[in-house]
Amino acid sequence: MSVIDIPPSPVRLAAVAAPGQPEPTPALEQLYRGFEQELLVPLWTQIGDLMPREPRSKASAHLWRWDRLLALADEAGRIVPVGRGGERRAIALANPSLGGRPFATPTLWAAIQYLMPGEDAPEHRHSQHAFRFVVEGEGVWTVVNGDSVRMSRGDFLPQGGWNWHAHHNAASQPMAWIDGLDIPFSYYTESQFFEFGRESLPPAERISPEFSRSERLWAHPGLRPVSQLQDQPTTPLLAYRWVDTDRALAEQLALEAEGVPATLSPGHAAVRFCNPTNGRDVLPTLRCEMHRIRQGASTLARQEVGSAVFQVFEGRGRVTVGERSWDVARGDLFVVPSWMRFEAHCDKNAASLDLFRFSDSPIFESLHAHRTLVQPR
Amino acid sequence: MSVIDIPPSPVRLAAVAAPGQPEPTPALEQLYRGFEQELLVPLWTQIGDLMPREPRSKASAHLWRWDRLLALADEAGRIVPVGRGGERRAIALANPSLGGRPFATPTLWAAIQYLMPGEDAPEHRHSQHAFRFVVEGEGVWTVVNGDSVRMSRGDFLPQGGWNWHAHHNAASQPMAWIDGLDIPFSYYTESQFFEFGRESLPPAERISPEFSRSERLWAHPGLRPVSQLQDQPTTPLLAYRWVDTDRALAEQLALEAEGVPATLSPGHAAVRFCNPTNGRDVLPTLRCEMHRIRQGASTLARQEVGSAVFQVFEGRGRVTVGERSWDVARGDLFVVPSWMRFEAHCDKNAASLDLFRFSDSPIFESLHAHRTLVQPR
Amino acid sequence: MSVIDIPPSPVRLAAVAAPGQPEPTPALEQLYRGFEQELLVPLWTQIGDLMPREPRSKASAHLWRWDRLLALADEAGRIVPVGRGGERRAIALANPSLGGRPFATPTLWAAIQYLMPGEDAPEHRHSQHAFRFVVEGEGVWTVVNGDSVRMSRGDFLPQGGWNWHAHHNAASQPMAWIDGLDIPFSYYTESQFFEFGRESLPPAERISPEFSRSERLWAHPGLRPVSQLQDQPTTPLLAYRWVDTDRALAEQLALEAEGVPATLSPGHAAVRFCNPTNGRDVLPTLRCEMHRIRQGASTLARQEVGSAVFQVFEGRGRVTVGERSWDVARGDLFVVPSWMRFEAHCDKNAASLDLFRFSDSPIFESLHAHRTLVQPR
Amino acid sequence: MSVIDIPPSPVRLAAVAAPGQPEPTPALEQLYRGFEQELLVPLWTQIGDLMPREPRSKASAHLWRWDRLLALADEAGRIVPVGRGGERRAIALANPSLGGRPFATPTLWAAIQYLMPGEDAPEHRHSQHAFRFVVEGEGVWTVVNGDSVRMSRGDFLPQGGWNWHAHHNAASQPMAWIDGLDIPFSYYTESQFFEFGRESLPPAERISPEFSRSERLWAHPGLRPVSQLQDQPTTPLLAYRWVDTDRALAEQLALEAEGVPATLSPGHAAVRFCNPTNGRDVLPTLRCEMHRIRQGASTLARQEVGSAVFQVFEGRGRVTVGERSWDVARGDLFVVPSWMRFEAHCDKNAASLDLFRFSDSPIFESLHAHRTLVQPR
Repeated sequence: MSVIDIPPSPVRLAAVAAPGQPEPTPALEQLYRGFEQELLVPLWTQIGDLMPREPRSKASAHLWRWDRLLALADEAGRIVPVGRGGERRAIALANPSLGGRPFATPTLWAAIQYLMPGEDAPEHRHSQHAFRFVVEGEGVWTVVNGDSVRMSRGDFLPQGGWNWHAHHNAASQPMAWIDGLDIPFSYYTESQFFEFGRESLPPAERISPEFSRSERLWAHPGLRPVSQLQDQPTTPLLAYRWVDTDRALAEQLALEAEGVPATLSPGHAAVRFCNPTNGRDVLPTLRCEMHRIRQGASTLARQEVGSAVFQVFEGRGRVTVGERSWDVARGDLFVVPSWMRFEAHCDKNAASLDLFRFSDSPIFESLHAHRTLVQPR
Repeated sequence: MSVIDIPPSPVRLAAVAAPGQPEPTPALEQLYRGFEQELLVPLWTQIGDLMPREPRSKASAHLWRWDRLLALADEAGRIVPVGRGGERRAIALANPSLGGRPFATPTLWAAIQYLMPGEDAPEHRHSQHAFRFVVEGEGVWTVVNGDSVRMSRGDFLPQGGWNWHAHHNAASQPMAWIDGLDIPFSYYTESQFFEFGRESLPPAERISPEFSRSERLWAHPGLRPVSQLQDQPTTPLLAYRWVDTDRALAEQLALEAEGVPATLSPGHAAVRFCNPTNGRDVLPTLRCEMHRIRQGASTLARQEVGSAVFQVFEGRGRVTVGERSWDVARGDLFVVPSWMRFEAHCDKNAASLDLFRFSDSPIFESLHAHRTLVQPR
Repeated sequence: MSVIDIPPSPVRLAAVAAPGQPEPTPALEQLYRGFEQELLVPLWTQIGDLMPREPRSKASAHLWRWDRLLALADEAGRIVPVGRGGERRAIALANPSLGGRPFATPTLWAAIQYLMPGEDAPEHRHSQHAFRFVVEGEGVWTVVNGDSVRMSRGDFLPQGGWNWHAHHNAASQPMAWIDGLDIPFSYYTESQFFEFGRESLPPAERISPEFSRSERLWAHPGLRPVSQLQDQPTTPLLAYRWVDTDRALAEQLALEAEGVPATLSPGHAAVRFCNPTNGRDVLPTLRCEMHRIRQGASTLARQEVGSAVFQVFEGRGRVTVGERSWDVARGDLFVVPSWMRFEAHCDKNAASLDLFRFSDSPIFESLHAHRTLVQPR
Repeated sequence: MSVIDIPPSPVRLAAVAAPGQPEPTPALEQLYRGFEQELLVPLWTQIGDLMPREPRSKASAHLWRWDRLLALADEAGRIVPVGRGGERRAIALANPSLGGRPFATPTLWAAIQYLMPGEDAPEHRHSQHAFRFVVEGEGVWTVVNGDSVRMSRGDFLPQGGWNWHAHHNAASQPMAWIDGLDIPFSYYTESQFFEFGRESLPPAERISPEFSRSERLWAHPGLRPVSQLQDQPTTPLLAYRWVDTDRALAEQLALEAEGVPATLSPGHAAVRFCNPTNGRDVLPTLRCEMHRIRQGASTLARQEVGSAVFQVFEGRGRVTVGERSWDVARGDLFVVPSWMRFEAHCDKNAASLDLFRFSDSPIFESLHAHRTLVQPR
C-alpha cells in the first residue's frame, strides 16, 4: 500500500490553440503522436509550468492544530503498537496540495511521534537527516550510537544521517514530540539507505542520564576537544537545551534594548542551531532555528527560496503565509511553501511569540541557488 | 496544458493485514479516518516506499535512438516555429516511468534542440543550469551575455544559471544538439526564476567568431587572468573544444600503455569538464564528462547515488543498465537511474566507444550524500 | 634604540676545505670575490643550515619563573608610567638564543602586562593578532571596539587583528596577565599595520559589566545569532571563561573514567579555544589550548613543526623540552621550539597539572606544512 | 661556515631620554639590569620597530644584471663541481640589507642555477616549495618523481614540497635558469625537512620527451582526469609552456583593443600560474605570474603586503621600486620589498615588456593578512 506512487501514465500531448503554441494542424497532431510513441515531450508545451518567472509552489500554506494532532497521536498510542517493521509511531503532516503524500512540503517531512510509558522504538539508521523538537513533556531518551540523550521541553536534538538510534520512554506518562527529516528530498532524489539495528537496547544503554556524552564533550561555548578535530558534516552535539536557547534569545532582546545590534529586526530575535565543528547548519540539508518575537512586535515580511515548517513553542500571535493568516498558539504547526511571503506578529497580551522553524535552505545555499527577498518596513 | 500536474488526490488510508502493519480493526479504521480528515499520514504505512534499504528508482533504464529523435526534430523544424513564448524547439526525453513528465530522470532534463538555417532562438535567462553538447553538425552560435560561442561536433558548452543566452543558426543547414539542464530538480525543489531578454540580437552579437571571448580569456591550461580572480560557482569558460577533449582521452590511453596510472580502469579513459576557477564541476548541480573505452575493453560495473544520462558520441558497443542491455551507436541516448548498475563495452570492431555523460552527482557531493559502489573485476 | 636590527654586514664568503665544498683554489677565491661584489651567495656554502634534515631551531628551550617576572613587573609598575607612545606596560620574554630580541620563539611574542589601580592603557589597533590569559588576579577590563570585557583568573581573551582595544584597571589592586601575539611572525614577514585610537575612553565604555556584549551574543553552545551570519576569520567571542574551560576538562577526564574516548591520551585532557563561526582556531596565526594532566599522569611525547609557549595555570609537575627538564608551578612560562620533543608529567601530590598553551600551528596548517610526530607509549 | 647565524648577543637595554620612553633614572637602570638578567625586553623600548604604522621593510629595493649573473654562473660551471652535499650549482641573490644572507627578500629565495653539458644535479626532496623559470636556453630536463620535464625558454616549472627531483643536462651547451623557493620563510619559521634521493637516475628516467607525463594528463584546459580527483594543495601540472602563456597574454591585449574587459589596467595584461585542481596558486606559499606591458604603456602604481622578485623575460622598459628606478632588459632581476610602491613602464621602442613575477602573497591571503593599495591613474 502506498499513497505516493507515481501514476504510470504515458506521454499524452494535445495540440491546442494558445499563445506561444504552434497552430493545431493534422501535421502537428501527427508529430505529437510521434513524440508520444518515442517518449518525447516538447518544451513549448510545458515551459510555463517548468520555468516560471519565480517559484510557484505546488504546496499550500496550511496549519495543523496541536490539540488535534495530539489527540490522534494519543489514540494511535492506544491502538497501534510500535515495533520492528513500522519502526516508529510517527504521524506525518500531509500537505493538502501534494497528492496525499506524507510531505509537509516538497522537501520536508514533519511528524508527531508518540511513545507510551515503558515503550521502545527499535534501533535503526538511515541516510536521511533527522531531528526531534520537544514542545512539551519529558521522559523519553533517544539513544544515538549508544549515547542516551534526554528529551525535555524546548530541547532540540539533531541527528545526522547514518547514525544508529532508538527511543525509549522511561517515564510513567506518554510523550509526544515532533520529528523533522529530509525524507521527501531524498525520496525525490532517490538517495536513501536504511538498515535495521539491534532488536533491543542493552541495559547499559537504557539509562537516563541528565546529560549525554555528546553534551559533556561538546556543549562548552567555543571549546573543542583536542581529541575531536576531524571534519564532521553533521553536528556531534546531540542536544541543544532550552535553557541555553532561551538565554540566547533573551540576551538578543536585552542587547537591542541597550542599543546594540543583535536582533534580526526590531523585536525579532533569532538563533540558528549550528554544528560546532564548522559553525554551519547542524545538518547538511536542514536549517533549524528558534525565533522570538517580542510582545506586540512583528517580523519583517520575507520570501525565500525553499520551504519551511514552523511550530509555535510558546506565546500567541498571528502568522501570515501568502494569502493565508491564522491565530496561533502553543504546538500549532504550519508550513511556508517556497517563495511565499511570511510574517509573524506577537499578540499584545503575550510575553513573546516563540517559533521553532526548520527549512531546506542549506540545500540551496550549498548549490548557490538561494535567494531571499526581505520587505523593508 | 500540462502533463506534470500533481493530482489533487486527498489523503487515503486503508487498514490492511500485512507484516509490520497494525491489525485492521474498527478502531483503526476510525483512527485512519481521523488522519485523513486532519491531513496526516502515518509512517508505518509508507516506510517501505519512503525508506528503502537502498535507492530503488521510480525511473526506468531506457534508450532513445538518435535516428528517431533526429527525424522527429527535423519534422518539428518544418512545422513548429521557434519564438518567444515557446522559447526553444527543444524536445525532451520522457522517462517511461515518470508519469509522462518530460524528465529523463527524477532530476535531469535532456532534450534534442533543433534550429533551421537562419533561425534564432530568443534571448532569455533562468536560474536552471544548462549545457549543450554537439554530437554532429555545426553552424549555430550560442550568444551568452553577448559573447558568441561556436558549436561544432564534440564541443561541450556549459552555461551557469542566470546568464542571458540566445542561439542563432548562421549556416545553410539545420543543426541539432542536445541540451542538458537541472529542470526536474529545480522543479521539485521549487527554486526556479526566469526572465525574457531582448527580442532580437543586435548585429554586433550576430557574428561568427571561431573562438568566444570566454575561450580567449580562459582556455589556457593552468593560466588564470589576474583581472578575474573572484570566486565563480559556475564556469566562466563557455566552450570545451573537441580537439582538447580528444587529445586528453588519447593521452590517458597512451600513458596507460606506457604503464603510467592515468585511466579509470584498464582501457577506460575519462575526463571531467571542470570550472577553471576552482577545479570543481562546471555547474553546481551537473557533472559532465567524456568517457572513452578502448577497442574491445569494458568499464568496471558501477552503482552511484543519483542518476545519469549518456549520449554515444562515436563508436559502437554494448551498454548494460540494471537488467537492460542495448547495442548502441552514434547519437543514441540512454539513462542510468539512481543506484542501478552500469557497464559499457566497446565493440571489437570499433576503434573506441566514446560516451558523453552527465549526472546530478554534484548535488549529492555538496550535501555529503554521495555513495559509489564499484565492482572490482 | 632597537635590539633587533639586522647587522649591516655585507656578503662574506670563505673558500674552505670541507666535505661537499669545492676545493679552495685561487680561482675559487676569485669567484667568491665576484659573488661578494654582486651580492650573491652560493647554495653549496649554506645548504646545511638552510635545508636541514628536520627543523633545528635557533631558539632554545627556556623557562621563566613567575615570581621573578611578577616582581620585575611590579617594580616597573612603580617607576614606568603607561601611556601613549610606549602604549603598554608589557615586558616580553626574550629567548636566550634569538639575539636579545623580545621574541619567545621565532614567531611568538609572550609578555607579562601590568596595570596599576586606576590606570588605563591607551586605545590602539594593529594587524597583529593577540590574546590575554589571566593566571591570577582580576579587576581589569579590556575594551574592544567599545565592548568592556572582564578579565578574571583562568579567562582567555582573544582579539583578532585590527580591532580597537584599551585596558583599564577598575580595582584597587594592580593586576598582571600575559599577552600573546604573533609580533615576531609579522615582523619577519613585514606585514604589520598600526593605528592610535582615542586618547581616553568615554565614561560609557569605562564600565565593569560581568559579561561583555560579545559573550551575551556568542557564548551559547552551538547557537549562532541569525543576525551574525557573515564569515569571520577571527573569533567574535571575546572571552572564554574559566568556569566553562574547567568543566570541559573535568568532563573529558570523567568520560575517560567511564570508558568513553574523550581525552588525547590516558589522563591527558585538552580543549582548543575555537572561533564559533567556523570551528577553527580563534585567530588565523595562533592556536590556544588548555591542557589538564591528571594526578600522576603524563602526556605522550610529541614533536611538532612550529613553536609553542606554555604557562602553568595550576598544579605542579615536571616538563621536558628537548634536553631540558624543569619542575614547574603556577605561573611559570616555558617555550617549546620547533620540532623539539615535549612531555609533561603531573606530580603525584597535585590534583592535576593545568597548562595553558599557545602555538603558531595554524600558520603551518593553512600552508599545508604542518607535521606532528607522537611517540606511542 | 654560515653567513646567516644569529649573533649570540644577550639582552642589552639602555635607558634613554626620548619621547614615549620613561625618564632615565638609577631606578630605571636597575630595573633594566633586572630585565637583562631575566631575559626580558619591555615593549616600550621596541614598539616603533616592531609595530610600525605600515610595513617598513628591512630589505632594499635592488637590481641584479643578468649578464653579470650569467658570467659568474658560467665561471662557477667551470670550477665548481655539482654533486651530493652541495646538491645544486645554485647562486642566490643576497639582498644588500639582509646581513649577507642569501635571501632576495625576507621570505623569498631566488637563484641562478647552472648545469654543464652532460651534468646531473642529484636527486633529493625537501619540504620547501620551488619552481624553475627559463629566461633563455634549453636542453635540461627536470625529473620529478621519475617524470622527465623539458625546460625551454619561457617555461615555468613549479614543484611542490616533498617531491623527489633531479636535473640533467642532455644538451651540448650549458644551461642557466632561475630557481625560486620559500627557503627564507621556512628558515625563519623553522619548518623544513630534507632527504637525499637516489645517487643517479636510471636510464629510463634519463630521457628527453617533449612533454612530461604530468602535461599529458593535466595540460588540457578545463579538463580533469577522472582518475585524479583527490585534493592536491600543490599543482600536479609540472610545466606551463611559453606558447600557452604568450597566447594568453596576447589575447588579453587583443580583447582589450576590442573593448572587452580582460587586462589588469589599460595596456597591462597578466596571467597567474594556477593549480588546475583548485584554481588557486600553484604552490601554497608562492604566487607566480607573467605580466605583459604593451609598447609605451605603464602599470598602475601598487603597494602590497609581502615581497616579490621579478625577472625581465623580454623587452625593455623602466621599473620603479620605492625610491629606486632602473632601465631593465632581458634577464635582469629585481626585488620589491613589502609595501614598497612598484610601477613598470614599457619602452616606446619595445614591442612589449614581459615580466615574470613571484611573491609570497599566498601566505598572507591564507592568513587573512593581505592588503593591497593601488593608485588609480
